[in-house]
Amino acid sequence: MSRYEPVDALAIKEARNLQARLTKPEGSLGRLEDLGAQLAGIYRVCPPPVPQDPLVVVAAGDHGVIVEGVTPWPQEVTAQMLENFLAGGAAINVLANEVGARVMVVDCGVRAQFEPSPMLHVVKRAQMTGNIHREAAMPESMAIELIDEGARFALLQASRGVDLLLTGDMGIANTTPSAALISAVTGVSATEVTGRGTGIDDHTLAKKTAVVAQVVDSFDGDRTAPSQLLARMGGFEHAFLTGLILGAAEAGIPVILDGVIAVAAALLASLEDPVVKQYLIAGHRSVEPGASVGLAHLGLTPLIDLGLRLGEGTGAVLSVPMVRAAARVLAEMATFDSAGVASKD
Amino acid sequence: MSRYEPVDALAIKEARNLQARLTKPEGSLGRLEDLGAQLAGIYRVCPPPVPQDPLVVVAAGDHGVIVEGVTPWPQEVTAQMLENFLAGGAAINVLANEVGARVMVVDCGVRAQFEPSPMLHVVKRAQMTGNIHREAAMPESMAIELIDEGARFALLQASRGVDLLLTGDMGIANTTPSAALISAVTGVSATEVTGRGTGIDDHTLAKKTAVVAQVVDSFDGDRTAPSQLLARMGGFEHAFLTGLILGAAEAGIPVILDGVIAVAAALLASLEDPVVKQYLIAGHRSVEPGASVGLAHLGLTPLIDLGLRLGEGTGAVLSVPMVRAAARVLAEMATFDSAGVASKD
Repeated sequence: MSRYEPVDALAIKEARNLQARLTKPEGSLGRLEDLGAQLAGIYRVCPPPVPQDPLVVVAAGDHGVIVEGVTPWPQEVTAQMLENFLAGGAAINVLANEVGARVMVVDCGVRAQFEPSPMLHVVKRAQMTGNIHREAAMPESMAIELIDEGARFALLQASRGVDLLLTGDMGIANTTPSAALISAVTGVSATEVTGRGTGIDDHTLAKKTAVVAQVVDSFDGDRTAPSQLLARMGGFEHAFLTGLILGAAEAGIPVILDGVIAVAAALLASLEDPVVKQYLIAGHRSVEPGASVGLAHLGLTPLIDLGLRLGEGTGAVLSVPMVRAAARVLAEMATFDSAGVASKD
Repeated sequence: MSRYEPVDALAIKEARNLQARLTKPEGSLGRLEDLGAQLAGIYRVCPPPVPQDPLVVVAAGDHGVIVEGVTPWPQEVTAQMLENFLAGGAAINVLANEVGARVMVVDCGVRAQFEPSPMLHVVKRAQMTGNIHREAAMPESMAIELIDEGARFALLQASRGVDLLLTGDMGIANTTPSAALISAVTGVSATEVTGRGTGIDDHTLAKKTAVVAQVVDSFDGDRTAPSQLLARMGGFEHAFLTGLILGAAEAGIPVILDGVIAVAAALLASLEDPVVKQYLIAGHRSVEPGASVGLAHLGLTPLIDLGLRLGEGTGAVLSVPMVRAAARVLAEMATFDSAGVASKD
């Protein structure tokens, strides 16, 4: 028996019926109507509640593969950016404030120590992953533990009233393991899923693509087993986010995915149980090609396409007003009957 | 001498320089960075202020061309929807509440009388336009007056602290004059600009396209004169919105365009002075094909593409959080120096 329940088909049907009676031509709110119906299904009631306490979870980790020269950024930037998140100065802080979301940072395995903070949650088992070009990323037992930490974190937050989870990430070099995971799960080649991350030149892109190809080719485990994939080629933040997505589905709350790191984690979570996909909302289309490959595999179409490639959860956060609007339309709009508006024909 | 000043190039340059020092890879916020720079240029200061009092102006009018069978909706729906706006039950009310925008309704020429309301502004000269398939829409003097009303309204609102204007519209059959105006200004054929509006069948679309083609072909006036175009084939709401856009540019505040009605008005306003285009933000890509043709002609790329085809200003309003976020990033993010974060390489 799965711990993940399919969303409520009856609530979805009620939402579709209600949408047909609201004072607007049928279907004229486009994707907002699909989103409203999905929210009704997830929250199991129509009209669905308008999310009141969205939480962005910025999962962070360091990556041994950095020594292969896959990024121009020094590793210490991961830790420095975590300090920046905790001080409120990063893009994700500013954008989260704009949409009324809170930010929490999770140290999944960053090569530094941080002062305790109410914004910081620590699940660290190691300072960084192994260099996946030459060795395993982590023991499989550690991957399983981090997935479990992510799931428990989602359940705990839901128990405290969080009604919408958003994935965020930070980890210098983390688009490399993301590309590898996406290639391994979807079967799409390294060339097609590997991108320029936060901005690399042709030479670095060639090295990065070669690393991704080698890692995926050398994997001889089970491509449907999240913990085996994570152990060979994952990041600590991928493991935690996989668990976070599973925990959100178990708790029955929606998850807005950010970019390529989140998409890799969502692919792993949906290997665990395809029902999990029903709880996912694609926040935006990252510039990173692997994100589009993964979203297509998941059957998701992003809400926003603004050419973002920053990570942190920025693309997910920008879509929060749309998600809230989709729910509010169902809760607050007048119907043709109640407003005395004539129908067509 | 024009009354429209080009946006401030120095403030744009300052925004670009600041964006390069913020704690994120260069360009990683994609279109949000272009938008931030544009706002700095419009408001003539860097960082630009975060818009505090966005106002959606829903311009409404009735259309004589309805007798040609270009829409399945009865004409009284225009007035009924205005009552719905004033009562707060329409999609635009709900979405505006979500993003913190106010709504005002302008009766530009609707075939009904309304009780006075602080949300209602009346500039009506006639109950509906002429049937453009057989006659002029309005006297040129009336078009000039309505443009003037729109410009004065924008200036008045700006004087009261409105710092962001959004176009909205309501008018059964108003995608027909929109298509005609867009075809006449851009030179693109009726077939390519005419769409299904809020939802019409193939037979009605064929009739609508034929009307648009006939109207544009029979125009023998000056295709660069907004008042002549409006007099022959416009709607009262198109005239008012043309003025609103001009007044916003004169007052130095940005205008977020909604769908095909707004795009037609923006094309007319930019005929008056191309500088006006610098003050425009395309909120969303309407499903209506004329909207995309017009946006391309204006050189604008929309922020949102959610398959909306409702009008009212809904697509403009949904982009407000992005516009605010673009300004806040410049005002609130830490720099690499201030946060002690290392740069790449």
